[in-house]
Amino acid sequence: MDELLERLRSGLPDEALISDPDVARSYDRDMAGFCEAGTPAAVVLPRTVDQVRHVMRTATALRVPVVPQGARTGLSGAANASDGCIVLSLTAMNRILEIDPVDRIAVVEPGVVNADLSRAAQQYGLTYPPDPSSWETCTIGGNIGTASGGLCCVKYGVTAEYVLGLTVVLADGRLLRTGRRTAKGVAGYDLTRLFVGSEGSLGIIVEAVLALKPKPPAPLVLAAEFPSAASACAAVCAVMEQGHTPSLLEIMDRTTLRAVNRLGSMGLPESTQALLLCAFDTPDPSADLAAVAALCEAAGATEVVPADTPAESELLLQARRMSLPALEALAPATMIDDVCVPRSRLGDMLDGTAAIAERHGLTIGVCAHAGDGNTHPVVCFDHRDADESRRARASFDEIMALGLELGGTITGEHGVGVLKKEWLATELGPVALEFQRGIRETFDPLGILNPGKLF
Amino acid sequence: MDELLERLRSGLPDEALISDPDVARSYDRDMAGFCEAGTPAAVVLPRTVDQVRHVMRTATALRVPVVPQGARTGLSGAANASDGCIVLSLTAMNRILEIDPVDRIAVVEPGVVNADLSRAAQQYGLTYPPDPSSWETCTIGGNIGTASGGLCCVKYGVTAEYVLGLTVVLADGRLLRTGRRTAKGVAGYDLTRLFVGSEGSLGIIVEAVLALKPKPPAPLVLAAEFPSAASACAAVCAVMEQGHTPSLLEIMDRTTLRAVNRLGSMGLPESTQALLLCAFDTPDPSADLAAVAALCEAAGATEVVPADTPAESELLLQARRMSLPALEALAPATMIDDVCVPRSRLGDMLDGTAAIAERHGLTIGVCAHAGDGNTHPVVCFDHRDADESRRARASFDEIMALGLELGGTITGEHGVGVLKKEWLATELGPVALEFQRGIRETFDPLGILNPGKLF
Ligand SMILES: Cc1cc2nc3c(=O)[nH]c(=O)nc-3n(C[C@H](O)[C@H](O)[C@H](O)COP(=O)(O)OP(=O)(O)OC[C@H]3O[C@@H](n4cnc5c(N)ncnc54)[C@H](O)[C@@H]3O)c2cc1C
Ligand SMILES: Cc1cc2nc3c(=O)[nH]c(=O)nc-3n(C[C@H](O)[C@H](O)[C@H](O)COP(=O)(O)OP(=O)(O)OC[C@H]3O[C@@H](n4cnc5c(N)ncnc54)[C@H](O)[C@@H]3O)c2cc1C
Repeated sequence: MDELLERLRSGLPDEALISDPDVARSYDRDMAGFCEAGTPAAVVLPRTVDQVRHVMRTATALRVPVVPQGARTGLSGAANASDGCIVLSLTAMNRILEIDPVDRIAVVEPGVVNADLSRAAQQYGLTYPPDPSSWETCTIGGNIGTASGGLCCVKYGVTAEYVLGLTVVLADGRLLRTGRRTAKGVAGYDLTRLFVGSEGSLGIIVEAVLALKPKPPAPLVLAAEFPSAASACAAVCAVMEQGHTPSLLEIMDRTTLRAVNRLGSMGLPESTQALLLCAFDTPDPSADLAAVAALCEAAGATEVVPADTPAESELLLQARRMSLPALEALAPATMIDDVCVPRSRLGDMLDGTAAIAERHGLTIGVCAHAGDGNTHPVVCFDHRDADESRRARASFDEIMALGLELGGTITGEHGVGVLKKEWLATELGPVALEFQRGIRETFDPLGILNPGKLF
Repeated sequence: MDELLERLRSGLPDEALISDPDVARSYDRDMAGFCEAGTPAAVVLPRTVDQVRHVMRTATALRVPVVPQGARTGLSGAANASDGCIVLSLTAMNRILEIDPVDRIAVVEPGVVNADLSRAAQQYGLTYPPDPSSWETCTIGGNIGTASGGLCCVKYGVTAEYVLGLTVVLADGRLLRTGRRTAKGVAGYDLTRLFVGSEGSLGIIVEAVLALKPKPPAPLVLAAEFPSAASACAAVCAVMEQGHTPSLLEIMDRTTLRAVNRLGSMGLPESTQALLLCAFDTPDPSADLAAVAALCEAAGATEVVPADTPAESELLLQARRMSLPALEALAPATMIDDVCVPRSRLGDMLDGTAAIAERHGLTIGVCAHAGDGNTHPVVCFDHRDADESRRARASFDEIMALGLELGGTITGEHGVGVLKKEWLATELGPVALEFQRGIRETFDPLGILNPGKLF
């Protein structure tokens, strides 16, 4: 232990190393509840690539596990410490190194906050589309680590689509460059994409080349109230089947609407079973909005309210972004699921989730990136009640089982971390798992990179 | 050898196995010139996954190399036979298994021809965007194998963006399922993307789940004539910098224009140094087209001609798609390069290529997916002339060196195959190459899958 701190110190400025156990312990976990987390031996906040390399060389020499961290907004425990590990927090490497409006790329350090990049890009008329609801705090490194999604992914795709090239410090401290600065490129296997979603298990991302897009007009949002989740999902299917390209297509159930009102007095309708939000960010979205309104009515919407201004629309989006924290505030404890199904099965997923809640006598609020078929059922419970905790865990698992049964995946965007390790093995099966392991061993033969995560 | 044929025959219907040496030899290569190709021991045209598994089990048992092939339109020798190999042609597995307009996916066998899928999708108001100019013949399996691009990639992205899930027969005959049917999913490392562009070296793709998009309106194309390649490239940069989203942005140089006219009497202007084609496929592209016309004029265009109808536009696109065959018809032999640079360096790339042609006293025609910075310099020469052949190869290499110097890649979309093996090593460097090898060994420990390609 002393040797570890001594070696670390030899290549780091004082302020980059936290060895005080109490302060170090405050870095022990991300925002997922009910995930194991160990006690770190040290926390390092590097500012340079060389400092990261020093940490990895030290870790390799001493066989000490390293847990990379961004803003720790993760929802799967993927950034949780293991006992005696070095927590490597990349938050201080937060410079935007370059934005090029002709090549439409940004080159950034991993600790750049998602929303900061978006704001910087805006000055060039550009935007960085992937927009997790945590965008004001989460980092690009964490976004790449989890392959995160967000609200606008139904039109613009997820993080994976925007990562062109990476600079990575490998387990042994060597430097690996992947990908490119160009719009296209197929030179060898796509190592860049392999790192997207690798949850810190293949290497430390120290620089990323990201694709930017022209900033679209501010979206106009339509809100539609439905008498059942199934009818809202039918509207989602109709919108997609009719060839529309909304920039956002979300569903919030009644529990979520109430929770958001309670937290933020947003004035959302609570009398309805499901609220559908649909936005377009085209220059003139009126025809699309009218068509979607008609489809909603045909699917049984009781009320369809188009926002008249971008400001009104932004309010609705804010309400949607508050869903998770609002649901979390409903109960002493929550478990947040992230099942993604083919959108044609979304209605079955929501009905099935309601049945699970009913069977276990629990409140489960659901908000969903409905256009992507990606649901976030939030299981609300009191963790001090042993039986309720058991039922919560059971329903959390049943939701994933249902997702797989419907042809879906256990995680649309939050990742596996420690929360869903067993379920990952179920989803992938033994053959895929064998090759997942093989890849991990290729990059990290000593098993020091974020051990205990994924599988 | 006899044992190989006997074993193969035991699990295949007669018509699936070609052992006649002359017929087998006709499967020895793709459309790349000047690439080594060996003589296959047998050609198998399976119709079922089980037949593919049988072939791979046999190959593993006897340690015989297997070379997967689609339509063999590849331009890097990636589908070329090696001596004594089994050529595994997937062209007979050409069924479209499913098209789902709500989930916007297609499930296809690998031998489906790109244009056939596009036409089938159209019946649902959908489209499969990646459109290599060879789309009337090339297969989805080959498109995935090479991660191919095309004309509309500047707006819609490349093949990688559209492959959601794969079924793969591994080297030892086991079945691997990767990815998903859902819009999103982050369960484990992205093995699907690893297979895209793997040039048949990691496994045999036997089924693919592909994303479809709503079919956009027919594009309207604008053609602009420029007095120099540099000024055309400046226009490309201006278009992108101003935040436009063309569905196509191509450049053809004078050599290419002449070649296309010669092959197809297309009536393209030959008096100009570079023709820029820019298309929009939005419902009302007139404002965009006018803005681009103004940008072209500001960049020095001598003539700007907007196509008035989709039919006129389609003619221009046909001319562009003919570029490669037309340039190939110019000389007894050609070598087709595929360098992609940041689009801000496109002008340097074209000027540099012209200088290389001049220095070596050769004709090098260039067509380019200009919006992506992806150039296809076609080196025209007489292969019967030893000195000219030497100069051709030298200029081909100098073009790649220039691309790397400009921050680009040696291959934007055609892949590495045998043609660019040495250059792949140069571009990637030793560390990346080590991990590329590691991944290959993980999937193919015996080295029987398309050996001698990539690295
Ligand atoms: C209120 C709220 C709303 C959310 N909404 C969304 C949403 O809409 N969509 C969505 O996808 N997610 C959402 N999330 C989850 C979370 O914000 C995302 O997963 C985010 O990408 C995590 O970023 P982070 O910087 O907090 O990373 P962390 O949580 O710190 O780390 C995430 C993973 O990345 C790894 N990592 C971090 N940095 C690096 C690096 N430099 N190199 C290698 N590995 C690294 C970590 O080891 C870990 O495995 C939400 C979370 C909250 C709390
Ligand atoms: C006139 C012309 C124009 C072209 N234009 C373009 C263009 O615009 N953009 C572009 O990107 N390319 C273009 N190409 C190149 C070529 O058409 C593409 O690379 C195409 O994707 C190859 O498809 P194919 O079916 O012919 O595959 P093949 O050439 O047969 O094979 C390509 C690679 O994929 C592998 N492979 C094939 N099927 C499978 C499978 N089922 N499982 C595993 N591996 C497999 C092969 O081993 C090989 O490595 C053009 C070619 C020509 C001749």
